[in-house]
Formats: sequence, C-alpha cells, structure tokens
Amino acid sequence: MKKLVLVRHGQSEWNLSNQFTGWMDVDLSENGVQQAIDAGKKIKEAGILFDVCYTSVLKRAIKTLHYVLEYSDQLYLPEYKTYRLNERHYGALQGLNKEQTAEKYGADQVKLWRRSYDTLPPLLEADDPKSSTNHRAYSKLETSSIPMGENLKITLERVLPFYEDNIVKALKEGKNVLIAAHGNSLRALVKHLDKLSDDEIMEVEIPTGQPLVYELNDDLSVAKKYYL
Amino acid sequence: MKKLVLVRHGQSEWNLSNQFTGWMDVDLSENGVQQAIDAGKKIKEAGILFDVCYTSVLKRAIKTLHYVLEYSDQLYLPEYKTYRLNERHYGALQGLNKEQTAEKYGADQVKLWRRSYDTLPPLLEADDPKSSTNHRAYSKLETSSIPMGENLKITLERVLPFYEDNIVKALKEGKNVLIAAHGNSLRALVKHLDKLSDDEIMEVEIPTGQPLVYELNDDLSVAKKYYL
Repeated sequence: MKKLVLVRHGQSEWNLSNQFTGWMDVDLSENGVQQAIDAGKKIKEAGILFDVCYTSVLKRAIKTLHYVLEYSDQLYLPEYKTYRLNERHYGALQGLNKEQTAEKYGADQVKLWRRSYDTLPPLLEADDPKSSTNHRAYSKLETSSIPMGENLKITLERVLPFYEDNIVKALKEGKNVLIAAHGNSLRALVKHLDKLSDDEIMEVEIPTGQPLVYELNDDLSVAKKYYL
Repeated sequence: MKKLVLVRHGQSEWNLSNQFTGWMDVDLSENGVQQAIDAGKKIKEAGILFDVCYTSVLKRAIKTLHYVLEYSDQLYLPEYKTYRLNERHYGALQGLNKEQTAEKYGADQVKLWRRSYDTLPPLLEADDPKSSTNHRAYSKLETSSIPMGENLKITLERVLPFYEDNIVKALKEGKNVLIAAHGNSLRALVKHLDKLSDDEIMEVEIPTGQPLVYELNDDLSVAKKYYL
C-alpha cells in the first residue's frame, strides 16, 4: 500500500512573534528546527521510505523537508519545490501582529479573515514592497498568477491542480510521497483526501512537525490515516 | 555572461579520520558545515544568483548545497541530485585508513591509486556489504552501472554525459548553474572546461568550500575563471 505523508513545517519566527506570515519568507525558530528533526526521527523509526518529495518555495517548509530527509537518512531523494504548495497568501495582513490587528479591526473581523473559507483578506497593492511579484522565486510566473491575498478556497484552487498533475501521477506509479508544506496548503490536500465540506475543513488543525500518514488504495481512496 | 559555479563539499568526518571515502555516505564534519556556510556567504556577497543547482546523492555534497543555498538566500531554487556527480568510487579501499593502507601496500602503490589517471583501485566484490548495489539511492540503476571501483578516467566518463545532457542545456538557455559535488567529480568538469590533459588534471586540487566561478561565453568556452 502506498503512503502519502504530510508534514507541516515546524514553528517559525513569526509564529513566535504572532505575526501574519503567508508568503513572507520567514525562517524556522529554534523550536521549529527541533520539531522538523523530531519528525525525521519518527519517520525513520516507523521505517517509512519515500520515493519522491515535494515542498513549497518558502524556506520554512524547505528546511523542514531537509531536516526530515536528513534525520530519516533519505537526503538522496528527488525533491521538487513549487509555489503551488506555498502557504495561503495573507494579503495586506502579512507582517502585521495578530493582536494589534484585532485591536484595529475588531476580533470578529480577524476571526473571519482567519477562519472563513471564502472571505478574502485585505489585498496587497501591486506596488507594495511586500508583494511577491518582484521576488526571484516567482520570476517565471505570469504576474497574474501571483496572488495579492487569498482565502482558503483560492489556496485550494492553487494547490489541487499540482496535486492532480504531479503527486497523483507519482502515487499511481506506486511511489511513496512526502510533502513538507504549510497549514493551509496541507488543509487543501486533507479536504480533498478526506472529502470534507467547506465548513468541516475549517475545523481541522494540522499540528506542526507531526507526520500525518495516509495509506492509500490503488484508486487513491484513503485506507488508513494516522499521525506518527 | 552566464556563470557556472563549482563548490567542493566541506570537510567530511572521514577527511578527519583519514579514511578513503568514495561512495560511502559520510557526513560533513563541524568544520565542513562551517565551510559550506562560508561558501554561501561568499556567493551572497558576490551577488551571484543562480537558476538551477545540481549535486550528487551523497549527503556531504547535498548538505553543502543546502547550506550554500540557505546562506545565499536562494533555497527556493530547483535542485537535482544525481549519482553521476558522486565522488570517484574507491573500490575495496573505501573505509580503510590511508596511513594503514600505505603501511600494508606501500606508499608508492597508494600514491598510484590516488594520483594516477587510469589505475583502478582494488575492486569491491559484488556481495561486499560496502557495495552500493543494495542502497536505495541507486535502486533505479542497472546493477552494471553501479561501480565496484573507479579511476579518474572512469569517473570522468560517468560525469561528462550528465554535464553534456543537462548542465550544458541549462547554460545554453542562459541559466546560471551551481554544482555542489566532490573533488574528483568536479575535476572531471574542470578537465573538460579548461581542456587539460590527463596528466595536467592530476595536478589540480580543488579546495573544499571555495566557490570556483567560471564565466562562460555563448559557445561555453571559458571567458574568466576565479575563486571567490
């Protein structure tokens, strides 16, 4: 039975400082590094061997992948990085402190931005220095593909085509797949795999650094699901 | 002008213990990690931006690549790992202490194994536990492609087809390329780029962790070559 394992990156520096992160390329905290190392050790103990790995183009996910591969003795595996596995883009909220944002806009509005499936955050202006349009990691994309702010629905519509075109192909070839990514890009996959409604997925919280194993049938339906 | 930058991995644990390494998957020493970090910082200071990276399937080169990318702020780049960039396979000498080997076989014989272009080391037996035939990193290769011992000539014949088929293609598309690899797989590239004779390449020693920059003309002839 083939395995698809999802790892949400460990704690980042902005988790610590309670800022909205999104596509801002924030590093792992010391604790986040340790979480990633522990995830690698758990995978090694469970004896799970992968064939191919995917991650985002954000360093907190990439470094998580690298620690997991190193501590499960699988650094030699092919790895693919794609913006499609990036975190949900948090628009003009990126970089703001969550508490201060709640004081300014009200707790209910912030809750809506954070927990609603299809409410957009305030969008970035195209010329905002926080926009990703000028970052080299996205230089091969059409400007129109670079978001100025996303809700979970739009994140999902960005993530799923990559899953269908690349990861499904690998799984159908019988490969075991590791994905190191973000809370919301992984939610997109969990919603799809577990066939959850828009409301149900909002209740799902994937813990950081805990490998989530899906054992899949030949038709890629879920046979078994568990955390290591 | 496009750039091809070669980085030889930092010091490994077996450099420290003076053992023949080859395809044994030995980790970087603490000093080796620092060398890789310094290489990344130098590349950042020089302002060199890459488009694509290549490395071997051995962790000392892969980790060197990762440190270089992290400390030059380019972790988002695509990276490809291939056994063709592996170190020269040192056959039955792998794991042996260099001094003890010299005592056993004589210093002249060991010098010949280390410094001759086309003398083979004693080969591994197929069932030797040190053979790479059962390692997952090589599971997609024909058994006949997995060496039991190589001289520099054979190493070169393994490395160059990958260079021609993949790296030349990237360079011709105008991409800047980073390669993190090993003393002898990089020698293969230096011999090719600098058009050195079999004797000349044996005199070339590429220092560890020092980025070697080739600036290349459109026909991929060398316009300029320097260490950072």
